[in-house]
Amino acid sequence: MERLKVVIIGAGMGGLATGIALQQAGYEVEIYDRASELRPAGAAISLWSNGVKVLNRMGLGAEIAKIGGQMERMAYYSHTGEQLTDFSLSPLVERVGQQPYPVARTDLQQMLLETFGADKVCLNAKCVNIQQTPDSAIASFADGQIATGDLAIGADGTHSAIRQYVVGRSVTRRYAGYVNWNGLVEASEDLGPLNSWVLHVGEFKRASVMPVGGPNGERRFYYFFDVPMADATEPLQADRREELARHFQGWADPVQRLIQRLDPAKINRIAIHDVEPLETMVRDRVALLGDAAHSTCPDLGQGGAQAIEDAFVLANCLVTNNLGVVDALKRYEALRQARTADIILRARKRSELTHGKDPARTLQWYRDLKQEDGSGIIDGICRTILTGPLY
Amino acid sequence: MERLKVVIIGAGMGGLATGIALQQAGYEVEIYDRASELRPAGAAISLWSNGVKVLNRMGLGAEIAKIGGQMERMAYYSHTGEQLTDFSLSPLVERVGQQPYPVARTDLQQMLLETFGADKVCLNAKCVNIQQTPDSAIASFADGQIATGDLAIGADGTHSAIRQYVVGRSVTRRYAGYVNWNGLVEASEDLGPLNSWVLHVGEFKRASVMPVGGPNGERRFYYFFDVPMADATEPLQADRREELARHFQGWADPVQRLIQRLDPAKINRIAIHDVEPLETMVRDRVALLGDAAHSTCPDLGQGGAQAIEDAFVLANCLVTNNLGVVDALKRYEALRQARTADIILRARKRSELTHGKDPARTLQWYRDLKQEDGSGIIDGICRTILTGPLY
Repeated sequence: MERLKVVIIGAGMGGLATGIALQQAGYEVEIYDRASELRPAGAAISLWSNGVKVLNRMGLGAEIAKIGGQMERMAYYSHTGEQLTDFSLSPLVERVGQQPYPVARTDLQQMLLETFGADKVCLNAKCVNIQQTPDSAIASFADGQIATGDLAIGADGTHSAIRQYVVGRSVTRRYAGYVNWNGLVEASEDLGPLNSWVLHVGEFKRASVMPVGGPNGERRFYYFFDVPMADATEPLQADRREELARHFQGWADPVQRLIQRLDPAKINRIAIHDVEPLETMVRDRVALLGDAAHSTCPDLGQGGAQAIEDAFVLANCLVTNNLGVVDALKRYEALRQARTADIILRARKRSELTHGKDPARTLQWYRDLKQEDGSGIIDGICRTILTGPLY
Repeated sequence: MERLKVVIIGAGMGGLATGIALQQAGYEVEIYDRASELRPAGAAISLWSNGVKVLNRMGLGAEIAKIGGQMERMAYYSHTGEQLTDFSLSPLVERVGQQPYPVARTDLQQMLLETFGADKVCLNAKCVNIQQTPDSAIASFADGQIATGDLAIGADGTHSAIRQYVVGRSVTRRYAGYVNWNGLVEASEDLGPLNSWVLHVGEFKRASVMPVGGPNGERRFYYFFDVPMADATEPLQADRREELARHFQGWADPVQRLIQRLDPAKINRIAIHDVEPLETMVRDRVALLGDAAHSTCPDLGQGGAQAIEDAFVLANCLVTNNLGVVDALKRYEALRQARTADIILRARKRSELTHGKDPARTLQWYRDLKQEDGSGIIDGICRTILTGPLY
């Protein structure tokens, strides 16, 4: 399509990846974000190979390899420290062609921001209204500023302000029934092998470390804890480390050491939510993308990769067709809706299995893990990767 | 993958498209061709939307639109001039998102050559040998010249010299049982509507005109004639126009006018062949591409588009994976083999239907065309387009 002007709301991973893909297609892109400083919500993500492939395709292969962690194995332990399974991820890499990269969100954000060009990101810009004419999409901001484009992208995250405009009704997030604590900690053998994603599971809870790299060769673990809770409200004057110590009392030594090593002020605490798959992702010249379009439980580790896939497919739809913006966005929706709905529903099912929605099934899963040689887990991950837009 | 060096044998449509895709991926590309001057074999091709989409994705949307013909309708007539069906191609364009472009081969070749850079194409270079080391592919040429790359691509057409090396046996082309005459002629209403692909069919033969554009706004028809012949040998001292006049004696007026208007010296005459789908397209660091990998009857109009799809998928495989060249080429093969085999076999089946292999079925097809409102034909073409690598 002719040189388009695109207004993107939201400078998170999805917004920036979209900005890069559309710049590379020769379009003019502006990104607006309400924040005064860009600070990702979680500490890290496991960017599975389907997301890495898109970054490779955008010419960012060396950059993502530089900040990605070396995750060569995967292991499950019981909460008391019994090894349930431990296997190499090489068969996965051989099947899909590209290793996954656990990565700190700030590193990924920074890399994408530098690639896109920080000068083209307008901060302190809170979008308060979206309008359309037959030829344009117009975003209005709280300070009176206005941005006009051939299209607008709502990449404004799980609390998206633009979602309601696109879907035509208010959308309620669904509490997934568990709380997640996460952060980064210096990697250390007494917490787990430096090249392995280790999960302790028991009592319907999880405690995990995953190797994350960094631009200066940092060796860090991304850690997370999950606890099912009917009420996710954070206690008043909470010390998050004490909260974790209480929930994980009696768990194996590496888990205890991990908790003791944390700085209470730097622990993120998130009540996990998702959103029922939306009936639409697009309204004429305005498209939702990333978490705004499909908020998912983190249980498949696909949130970031799906946003990056969205970016790639959206760019393809705009570039490869010549029936105009509205038609191209419909194609984007047709290509992404089933894919992302499937991820949401599978992640939810998985979150229920790991967090004891049906306690008997979760206890059976613990027993099954003892028989797991890795092939079942790898099959599941490969299926998700190989049904992505690149191969 | 790291910056690769790629040696391409063959500067036809497939070789040049591959060169462009790999250059855009940041690789170093050299193209070698045995010819002293690049001259495409046929006069024109119908580049269906799957091929156009890849060119759009390569940033060549404006360029292909400039040289493409405006083919808005499609019509079948009996050889005596009775209209069998006449329908708009708009429903096709709406479904697939991009109009097809019939295009003169010299225009397409020239556009691709200029994009790639004529200075990086080495002519008079006849490849006589291919060797490999664990790290490289080495092409030797008749004049003693040698080219070494991380990989080599055999894009040397239906008579490919590299095919035997890759497949490990000699490959024989299969005569499809009919001869095709084709060329370009000035468009004129007395030959057919200027915006319509018109086919006259009867006696198991075909006579057709298709609107082709040009870089300077030319209005030309691509014409072709098909005649089933047991022996495809060209008569000694043949006047090809006389040959056509004889085969199409008694056909409708527009066909007679077309034949009378042709310059006998400029009529191409081709005995149509295809090649049984190959069991392999790749040998370690050497890959076949385009007609070298899958010679097909022209009856689906997919030869050029499949070469261009090959180029796109090959580039994707090299760029998005990080297990090395040999692994990436295996992925290319896995993605292209079934797709191109399907095209070969469907084109063959279609060529048999249109040329009377089973006379009763062809006569039934003529009758069926009278009932055709376009939807059946459009369904078939859409299926081919929408199973391509872009959407």
